[in-house]
Amino acid sequence: MNLQTPHAFEPPSAIAPNCLTATQALQALQKDRVSAIELVKACLQRIEERNHDVRAWLHINAHALEQAAKLDALPKDQRGKLHGLPIGIKDVFETKDMPTTFNSPNFQGHQPGQDAAVVDLLRAEGAIILGKTDTTEFAAAGRNAATGNPHDTQFSSGGSSAGSAASVADFHVPLSIGTQTGGSTIRPASFCGVYAFKPTFGMVSREGFKIYANSLDTVGWYGRSVADLALLADVFGLTETIRPKPSTLRLRICMSLGPYCDRLQPEALHAMNVAADRLRHGGHEVAGSDLPADFDALDGHHRTILHREGAAAFRNLARRFGGELHDDFHHRVENRDRRSLTELRHAYDAAAQARVAFDALAGDFDAILVPSAPGYAPEGRHPGDPVFNAMWTLLGVPCVNIPVFLPDAPLPIGITLTGPRFSDCALLASAGLVAPLIDCAPTPHV
Amino acid sequence: MNLQTPHAFEPPSAIAPNCLTATQALQALQKDRVSAIELVKACLQRIEERNHDVRAWLHINAHALEQAAKLDALPKDQRGKLHGLPIGIKDVFETKDMPTTFNSPNFQGHQPGQDAAVVDLLRAEGAIILGKTDTTEFAAAGRNAATGNPHDTQFSSGGSSAGSAASVADFHVPLSIGTQTGGSTIRPASFCGVYAFKPTFGMVSREGFKIYANSLDTVGWYGRSVADLALLADVFGLTETIRPKPSTLRLRICMSLGPYCDRLQPEALHAMNVAADRLRHGGHEVAGSDLPADFDALDGHHRTILHREGAAAFRNLARRFGGELHDDFHHRVENRDRRSLTELRHAYDAAAQARVAFDALAGDFDAILVPSAPGYAPEGRHPGDPVFNAMWTLLGVPCVNIPVFLPDAPLPIGITLTGPRFSDCALLASAGLVAPLIDCAPTPHV
Repeated sequence: MNLQTPHAFEPPSAIAPNCLTATQALQALQKDRVSAIELVKACLQRIEERNHDVRAWLHINAHALEQAAKLDALPKDQRGKLHGLPIGIKDVFETKDMPTTFNSPNFQGHQPGQDAAVVDLLRAEGAIILGKTDTTEFAAAGRNAATGNPHDTQFSSGGSSAGSAASVADFHVPLSIGTQTGGSTIRPASFCGVYAFKPTFGMVSREGFKIYANSLDTVGWYGRSVADLALLADVFGLTETIRPKPSTLRLRICMSLGPYCDRLQPEALHAMNVAADRLRHGGHEVAGSDLPADFDALDGHHRTILHREGAAAFRNLARRFGGELHDDFHHRVENRDRRSLTELRHAYDAAAQARVAFDALAGDFDAILVPSAPGYAPEGRHPGDPVFNAMWTLLGVPCVNIPVFLPDAPLPIGITLTGPRFSDCALLASAGLVAPLIDCAPTPHV
Repeated sequence: MNLQTPHAFEPPSAIAPNCLTATQALQALQKDRVSAIELVKACLQRIEERNHDVRAWLHINAHALEQAAKLDALPKDQRGKLHGLPIGIKDVFETKDMPTTFNSPNFQGHQPGQDAAVVDLLRAEGAIILGKTDTTEFAAAGRNAATGNPHDTQFSSGGSSAGSAASVADFHVPLSIGTQTGGSTIRPASFCGVYAFKPTFGMVSREGFKIYANSLDTVGWYGRSVADLALLADVFGLTETIRPKPSTLRLRICMSLGPYCDRLQPEALHAMNVAADRLRHGGHEVAGSDLPADFDALDGHHRTILHREGAAAFRNLARRFGGELHDDFHHRVENRDRRSLTELRHAYDAAAQARVAFDALAGDFDAILVPSAPGYAPEGRHPGDPVFNAMWTLLGVPCVNIPVFLPDAPLPIGITLTGPRFSDCALLASAGLVAPLIDCAPTPHV
């Protein structure tokens, strides 16, 4: 985390409980150096101070302090893996005790009365659902989140998981849950300067979250360290990996700007080169490699799948709400771009082939270093261009965003480490090894 | 429909409104020859007479007659595509005004308070959700449906969509919704002697239905004619097709017993041969063809994907309910069969390759004729062996079950017509052309 950057936002006192990473907070809770109530109070106070500017939240859990008190009363041997940790939930996941609005005018006050599978798992492990974070409508299109970038609220926090990224970046919560269909988890992490993880497709249940594109939608999450990302990976059952964790301290990294490198802004190219230099300086090997030539078609295939699957996803809403539903969704339902089923089938088949090709290439390295975003966060509230993320979502491979601390930068920027499908644990282990080198930000003392 | 079979069950009077197909009922409603109230009353009376034996239903909509009265009052130009049609919903889909139990002891009385996407679409088109039909627990494993085969309740109606198949077969409703992850839509149709359709994977929203295996779960449906299946296909937006509908009355059909033909019982082999003979007799061409040799691995790949994806799907329930959840689900969550991620990845990649190979083969024919089940329904309540369906579910291709009327058979049996991915409309058109030949049952006069 870029705690002492020259960015416009004022970081809170480094010893405030809300500034602890999740892993630090768990240790402090275990050693009775902080209580769940104190942790929640500090988070709520930070939200109180900051949310009128940052606007990360659509709803705050009015019972968070009561829930914290109950957790504090629990004997230590009955505590879950996330005992006492406040967590933000992107408002596309159902929560039994809070509204789930999808940031849609059509669902204001909507109360499904049940928890999404991931929310259920978080609660079972003792997490406190602190509230619902703002999102692009249905995590898809329509209206943007109102969330501003915590480093300068004139700028976007990215999207669609805008509030989830901003709330962790701005020390409202140590952890939050987002989703990714194009670049909706990783890109906001790059813009806001936080860690984020999008696991291999299909490994975490999406039950109770608003589906947009069935082959792409993936649960992702945010934290302020790789260890925090691994904590949630464990809770969600990502404990196995298709290949062993790195057995040496000298990693083999492959750097690739990818087929869309002409859309990379100077700051993003600079961040990639700085990351590579820091890795080499830290004793790691950084090789360059081109991706297969036909990968340049993947972004188009992604969009074909996104729009055609979106037609099925929004069909009933278009029927129910008619003109009251944002036109973006009618656009998909009516297939106004006229993407044919032949194109769709070809997109599926080409993606399946590319998955095999990428896994073979990535299998020779501990991680593949690729851009997280075209550049800094744009002004306003536009979620930004997903071109550097959509390909990896389509391939279904795990991705970690690591912030690249650059002392004179006006806004944060990050890079992505990726690897073969199902290498989630190994990738998180590699990312944990190299993140302190890449991030390089002065860390808070607790 | 085998209306005048020698089966044990007594078919109702052929002029009762509940005996109309959906298409016939729509016409009768349009011409004021029957009202929605009369239709619902006839269905409820049939359920009253038969459900204590057949046990197709877990819940009946107490407001169905009121809803029918409202629909009857609606001017004709404001009526939906399914105006006044009673429909059964497998109890794995959320319904805002009825319990959704998944036939699980852990969810008795569960009320999500919202409609699944398909239920929302059905209601929007004027259908009356008559109730929730029995199912294998979570449409997956655990406890079986209590539903008996309407033709002889000593026998199974198949599963997991047991109640949906039986309710249509037994004239409780003209239409019902099921799901298929292995053989859960097509196999019960074969056992009960009704028409069923499983569309191409991903074309119909699964939002609000209990996920088991993300790459396999598909919404399917039942009717008593191909026209009725096409009616729902239209409502769900399956209006486009990757290839044109058949332009000739002489179809080219490919018959294949598939790689698991050694598991075919004599009655199923007989049904296949009878269907082929009737097609030839009706002037169609029936060629034989072997599927690619490596297709014999697809059933294993299906099971690997089923169990590993099931682990993600049931993880939160295993955490929440512990020993109160049926051991079958813990089996999946704990991966007790020790299926590795390497196997899983290989299963995905092999399936993707096989999809391309099958589409190429199937593209030369108007339909591929394959078995719907290994034989007659088994005794008891076991859902039956999915080996003749799982492969097609894995390939994601559309499948239609057509009953094969055999005058002296003790129980119904069907065959499947399948075709390339996204050929849904063309396949339904082909099935509509040949179904009267294959089924060959005396039809009810209305």
